[in-house]
Amino acid sequence: MVVFKFVLEKKDSESKARIGYFETIHGRVETPIFMPVGTVGSVKTVTPHELKEIGAQIILGNTYHLHLRPGDDIVNHFGGLHKFINWDKPILTDSGGFQVFSLSELKDLTEDGVTFRSHLDGRKIFLSPEKSIEIQSNLGSDIMMVLDECVPYPCEKSYVERSIELTAMWAKRCKEAKRNFWQALFGIVQGGVYKDLRKISAEQIVEIGFDGYALGGLSVGEENNIMYEITEFTTDYLPEDRPRYLMGVGTPEDILECVERGVDMFDCVMPTRNARNGLLFTSYGKLHIKRQDWKMSDDPIDPHCDCYTCKNFSRGYLRHLYKAGEILALRLNTIHNLHFYISLVKEIRNAIKNGCFKKFKREKLEMFKIGGDNV
Amino acid sequence: MVVFKFVLEKKDSESKARIGYFETIHGRVETPIFMPVGTVGSVKTVTPHELKEIGAQIILGNTYHLHLRPGDDIVNHFGGLHKFINWDKPILTDSGGFQVFSLSELKDLTEDGVTFRSHLDGRKIFLSPEKSIEIQSNLGSDIMMVLDECVPYPCEKSYVERSIELTAMWAKRCKEAKRNFWQALFGIVQGGVYKDLRKISAEQIVEIGFDGYALGGLSVGEENNIMYEITEFTTDYLPEDRPRYLMGVGTPEDILECVERGVDMFDCVMPTRNARNGLLFTSYGKLHIKRQDWKMSDDPIDPHCDCYTCKNFSRGYLRHLYKAGEILALRLNTIHNLHFYISLVKEIRNAIKNGCFKKFKREKLEMFKIGGDNV
Ligand SMILES: [Zn+2]
Ligand SMILES: [Zn+2]
Repeated sequence: MVVFKFVLEKKDSESKARIGYFETIHGRVETPIFMPVGTVGSVKTVTPHELKEIGAQIILGNTYHLHLRPGDDIVNHFGGLHKFINWDKPILTDSGGFQVFSLSELKDLTEDGVTFRSHLDGRKIFLSPEKSIEIQSNLGSDIMMVLDECVPYPCEKSYVERSIELTAMWAKRCKEAKRNFWQALFGIVQGGVYKDLRKISAEQIVEIGFDGYALGGLSVGEENNIMYEITEFTTDYLPEDRPRYLMGVGTPEDILECVERGVDMFDCVMPTRNARNGLLFTSYGKLHIKRQDWKMSDDPIDPHCDCYTCKNFSRGYLRHLYKAGEILALRLNTIHNLHFYISLVKEIRNAIKNGCFKKFKREKLEMFKIGGDNV
Repeated sequence: MVVFKFVLEKKDSESKARIGYFETIHGRVETPIFMPVGTVGSVKTVTPHELKEIGAQIILGNTYHLHLRPGDDIVNHFGGLHKFINWDKPILTDSGGFQVFSLSELKDLTEDGVTFRSHLDGRKIFLSPEKSIEIQSNLGSDIMMVLDECVPYPCEKSYVERSIELTAMWAKRCKEAKRNFWQALFGIVQGGVYKDLRKISAEQIVEIGFDGYALGGLSVGEENNIMYEITEFTTDYLPEDRPRYLMGVGTPEDILECVERGVDMFDCVMPTRNARNGLLFTSYGKLHIKRQDWKMSDDPIDPHCDCYTCKNFSRGYLRHLYKAGEILALRLNTIHNLHFYISLVKEIRNAIKNGCFKKFKREKLEMFKIGGDNV
């Protein structure tokens, strides 16, 4: 019984950009899509109803964080993550691997799995491919990710070479592990910045066969151009009839560049985290809300934005709230930034549909260069 | 030209409780009312639209805080506080006196006014009756408060005696100061816990004549019973045809007790501040959301509450958010607590209307004793 289904609707004639959609039991998601990150069961500062108003179609939950707190057994007691957090649209969960390798201490890595200490209370925890799938089953996400080894950047080629073997072996075990029939499972291609290893990893992962394919281990410190090049290279080795997900990416520019290179799905904490730091994305590029310039400004953050924040509040007020340390500032900034990202991918879909993606991308990038602080 | 108008609709036959309403250019407010506190231009964590959904009819802005940041001249540049914060219903501003006497350092008090250092950056600021009215004019509130001297508790009778003279003199100067024709001005009765001084102060302030009368200097550390007794005593010296406002009060119990003693208006940071500390008000009394008991609880905070939080989220989820330090926890808790207070005064109005206030009050107080943590 097939539950998860991806439909490729149109390929751009001038680039590898494409539009499509996938179906889950919690509804349809149009691609290319951006997924807001709901780290510990809340996309920081906003409600599920606000996310819907913003136009979010799918959000991401972090397996590592939810396993540690409140515990996936607790989430399961409430009927899964959708019910626990009151979000009835699709959810993708990561495998927990990325956080284990970046956040936790004292990692003990074997073929079997990885033992680490919780960053919260130091207790020892074991994560294996089977355990990751078990946790994600408890969470009840619509799309699960396989457990992979995340290598740092830079990383010796010989290490990456051994690492993609482990990643492939774990991917296989993830596929074989028991999960709910309606949960899709995505494989992850690793290989660092080495094209030959990316090719091998892609072939190994595609050989195992998954509902979708992710590019892992990018946007971890390498230069943008390298990231774009590896993405461009790797998508050639991924089947056209499956969605492609570039994990942890990125800036609005990154999204435009990587859609062009054949990517369908993105997630990043950038819109939410930057919002809480007063850095806002606009049609004209970045705007810093705390600047003195906005003290008397009646203008909205972005004249082209129709989000709740821009429709109701001035830069002057938002600057004041931010300087005064008001929580409302973090909320209103987050709403705007998420709306910006969600609108960007919507515009991208329309541009591809109308056959003018390259022109659209060129114009967007030109606009971003102006700088939101200069408008 | 009379703009502000108070209408006393009904007096309770068994107590001094009463219902009525007042009109401002920003609309009508039914009394008894509770006013959420919007310290620096935001009722902490919530939007103006959420306040309306909760049923708030009027909010309070703090003159001291807004004068320091962003500055009342800035607020005036935006067309006043209503436009700055995007709230089109009535606003009451305090005089700034309470914060000067409680927050700032190095107070130099003379008949003319008070010089203090900003708690933000230490700069010297002078506040006089005229200056307070000027700031409140810039803010454009619907109801202004006179500047008074706030004495600490306990306080020597001889000091309070001299203080009420200063308060009366300042009240007179506030009334004579220039303000917008549509801004109402309330006098403030002081006198500490000394009934004879309360009587003198009330007579002096009523003699000057204001649109409404406030009881200041209560809920500053004295026992509840003393506060109730002074309130009961003082309202006898206030005209029936003007609203009475008990400043900075209080708990749900306080509100019930003081409505019974003839008070029409209340403000307090308790619902918002307690919410951010995880202390929630329910029909059954206080509930601590971080308790282990709620880990698996599917129940809403309060089964009798129809606020956004209670309609959408479980205690288990709210506990998790709170423990994880999520901002959404503070928002959802605040919505619930404000809804509780706003609903309480609404129920109080209905009870008075239906001639059953005493019974209603008795039953409410009984329920509160059960304890929200025990339900
Ligand atoms: Zn916006
Ligand atoms: Zn509630």
